Amino acid sequence: MINYTLRQLHYFLAVAEAGSISAAATASHISQAAMSQAMDDLERAVGAQLLVRRRARGVELTAVGTVFLHDARELMRHAEEVQGQIIERQTTLAGPLVIGCYSSLAAFWIPVICEKFTKPNPGLSVTLVEGDGAELQQQMLKGHLDVVLTHTRHLLPQVHHRTVMSGRPYVLVAANHRLAARSSVRLSELAEEDFVGLDLPTVRDNQLVNLRMSGLDPKVRWSSQSFEAVRGMVARGLGYTVLVQRPPVNVSYDGLPLAVLEIEGPVGVSDICVAYTASERPSLRLRAFLDFCEQVGAKRDAGDARGSS
Amino acid sequence: MINYTLRQLHYFLAVAEAGSISAAATASHISQAAMSQAMDDLERAVGAQLLVRRRARGVELTAVGTVFLHDARELMRHAEEVQGQIIERQTTLAGPLVIGCYSSLAAFWIPVICEKFTKPNPGLSVTLVEGDGAELQQQMLKGHLDVVLTHTRHLLPQVHHRTVMSGRPYVLVAANHRLAARSSVRLSELAEEDFVGLDLPTVRDNQLVNLRMSGLDPKVRWSSQSFEAVRGMVARGLGYTVLVQRPPVNVSYDGLPLAVLEIEGPVGVSDICVAYTASERPSLRLRAFLDFCEQVGAKRDAGDARGSS
Repeated sequence: MINYTLRQLHYFLAVAEAGSISAAATASHISQAAMSQAMDDLERAVGAQLLVRRRARGVELTAVGTVFLHDARELMRHAEEVQGQIIERQTTLAGPLVIGCYSSLAAFWIPVICEKFTKPNPGLSVTLVEGDGAELQQQMLKGHLDVVLTHTRHLLPQVHHRTVMSGRPYVLVAANHRLAARSSVRLSELAEEDFVGLDLPTVRDNQLVNLRMSGLDPKVRWSSQSFEAVRGMVARGLGYTVLVQRPPVNVSYDGLPLAVLEIEGPVGVSDICVAYTASERPSLRLRAFLDFCEQVGAKRDAGDARGSS
Repeated sequence: MINYTLRQLHYFLAVAEAGSISAAATASHISQAAMSQAMDDLERAVGAQLLVRRRARGVELTAVGTVFLHDARELMRHAEEVQGQIIERQTTLAGPLVIGCYSSLAAFWIPVICEKFTKPNPGLSVTLVEGDGAELQQQMLKGHLDVVLTHTRHLLPQVHHRTVMSGRPYVLVAANHRLAARSSVRLSELAEEDFVGLDLPTVRDNQLVNLRMSGLDPKVRWSSQSFEAVRGMVARGLGYTVLVQRPPVNVSYDGLPLAVLEIEGPVGVSDICVAYTASERPSLRLRAFLDFCEQVGAKRDAGDARGSS
């Protein structure tokens, strides 16, 4: 059982160097009383007198103190080395980072993460896990994941998050739809038309609620779990849809043209965020990933689809 | 327990109309002996003499036969009505049809199915289920699905299938890749480069085996469950990939250009097929769906991405 602290050793070295408690206290930016107390505590902790205190507050090392000074210097150097290695390791982003990515965001975020975050940091061991936003957060709370890239709408109450990109929904219609030439529409203008739904749990649970709160009760006539199948059905005139992610080309996988319409008036947004668990001090790699996503999101919010130029 | 057959009734009506067994046999295109036998069998079945046979092979109805003639006419009309309803119902494609669709094919097939098969046949109650190709076939064998649209490589041994579209793999690289200007490559030219894998169970299990049999052992360095994330990673120069489905636009979701290269020499194909269970007589709606997919696939094989123009 070690009873002394590294702080006490640090002060002891300062006293030995300065030759007096008052000078060491001044150099260490603490009071003389605190420095004097620290020396008393250190001597009690090691069970030996290290210093001979003189009237004029000068000090001399005892024989034991002289030997201890040597050992203390070596120990402090070692402790600094250990600390330095920690810092260096954190500066080059080493260690494991398990990133969960909500499936709907995978196509938009995984490529830029791999190219601009994983690849330039070979010391990092990044694992990407794709899945449902809420399920991934559950896994994170159990300790299996470090972070989850998802929508703010899907956040569990127990997690922390940083919003990294805005996600305002838009209306998608076929290029030959009666409203396709417009740049924006009110949701109420579509109330009588068939809706093509993206049939994923988190979308289902959130989007329809969101649309109803925005005054539209969509007539869900068609649906698919595939984002591009939804776009394809819209392109074929089976109905309109409301989506958040925006591919750069308004053409379906069938080669049919689509038109994007902004939504006029208030509508619930579904921003993109990085969720993480509370911890006293998030690791450097976690903070680096948060910063990275924030930078990509800001560039995309500014109109750069790549988020990396 | 009914012992007579509709065929016997049909012949009995013919005999009553013609007034003789020989004339009725001629009209019905069977032999006199067969007609005579049919009348004997019918009388034995109903347990009563219906006809009085005369020497010149003329016949007269008994009193019981006269009453039976009326009932038989009514029953035959009813039976024809039932038959007619069956035909009509089958001609307008009524009834349930549960279609399984392998997830990777959803974006390419669900829109055209909904527009050109489901919507024009409102009497049909079509349910589309998306999932893993092998799992969907297992569900079909348990009776939960009628058909499964999948790859020939994923077929379970117990199912029947009809191939509807060819699926020759191709190489995808970034537009600034050293080989991007070529129209085709040998797989061996890519052996030293990183591979970006589409990490779906059926792809994993089949594609790598397929590529190894074609002489390439891919160095899988990156992967995603998302088709567009794979394309995005390729567009960012992280590696090449081998895919089968061909979206019409060679641009990733990040807005980065891609290049498609055909594969020179022999390579295992992964055709698209409709799997169904063996049954003595597949329903008209099942056959209609098989024909529909075959037509769409043939048009796509001929270069029409929509498969429906």
